[in-house]
Amino acid sequence: MNLKEYIRDVPDFPRKGILFRDITSLLEQPEAFREVIREMSTKWRDKIDVITALDARGFIFGGALSVELGVPLVLARKKGKLPGKTVSVSYGLEYGTDTLEMHADSLTSGMRVLVVDDLLATGGTASAACSLIEKLGAEVAGCAFVIELEGLGGRENLSKYQIQSLVRYTEETNE
Amino acid sequence: MNLKEYIRDVPDFPRKGILFRDITSLLEQPEAFREVIREMSTKWRDKIDVITALDARGFIFGGALSVELGVPLVLARKKGKLPGKTVSVSYGLEYGTDTLEMHADSLTSGMRVLVVDDLLATGGTASAACSLIEKLGAEVAGCAFVIELEGLGGRENLSKYQIQSLVRYTEETNE
Repeated sequence: MNLKEYIRDVPDFPRKGILFRDITSLLEQPEAFREVIREMSTKWRDKIDVITALDARGFIFGGALSVELGVPLVLARKKGKLPGKTVSVSYGLEYGTDTLEMHADSLTSGMRVLVVDDLLATGGTASAACSLIEKLGAEVAGCAFVIELEGLGGRENLSKYQIQSLVRYTEETNE
Repeated sequence: MNLKEYIRDVPDFPRKGILFRDITSLLEQPEAFREVIREMSTKWRDKIDVITALDARGFIFGGALSVELGVPLVLARKKGKLPGKTVSVSYGLEYGTDTLEMHADSLTSGMRVLVVDDLLATGGTASAACSLIEKLGAEVAGCAFVIELEGLGGRENLSKYQIQSLVRYTEETNE
């Protein structure tokens, strides 16, 4: 199955000049959504102890993969969303910074963690999640993405980790 | 399995006097997360054509249920998150209003839609989702929640629809 056929291109979102790769069209085709989970589960089965899903589209894939593999799901969320005691890290965005949080008791030393998100671009959010995972004493087993936008530095930013991406685009960076 | 045992109570979140029912502790127990999906899929199998998951925790359960049932997943998101042409509805919160959006081409006339979210409280967000679904010409087959906080008017707000909730709490409203 060519998953790329299920991903819609939306021009000028979130702003003029950006071609947005839209996974909602993939989610509307159950055979494609199932193929994503099949490919991710095939790669990571028996190699991980827990999944960390990134707020918010990572929840879609991380949740389904957690049920498929029978491993715990831990959420990495934007600031102020998690009710318990958290650890947090701030990371740079194109304009300004953002903060990612995880529950302080959500991981324990030595756990092998898979980071799941829909899309790898610059890798800022995934890299922040990896640093939180390591702060909690756990080990990043890898990062899994549906889409990778090549040429934006994401893979370089995550060079310490094993990366799985199912669909790749070569992006122009000269906007 | 008593799912309530897997849900953690966090006092004074998001503000003093609120006892927050935290599903992250359930997600960390794969047998409990799987039981949620088992109960939802048992109830709705062959009765729905599409799932609408609510931003953001609804994505966790809606995504896994979509893969389990093999039905399309459509997202209902906060304003400005969906890239394509949308329909939107504003709804009241305790302070101010919020706006929910769905892609205008995500549903077609006659589709039977299940709304999925983690928690039913006042029902404001779920009710807004139902009105969007009907605006698009589709039919709300029902609403499924992991948790229902009774006494906050949610079930009354959704009285036109069939409701499934897996864990119920009777909440004090005299804060």
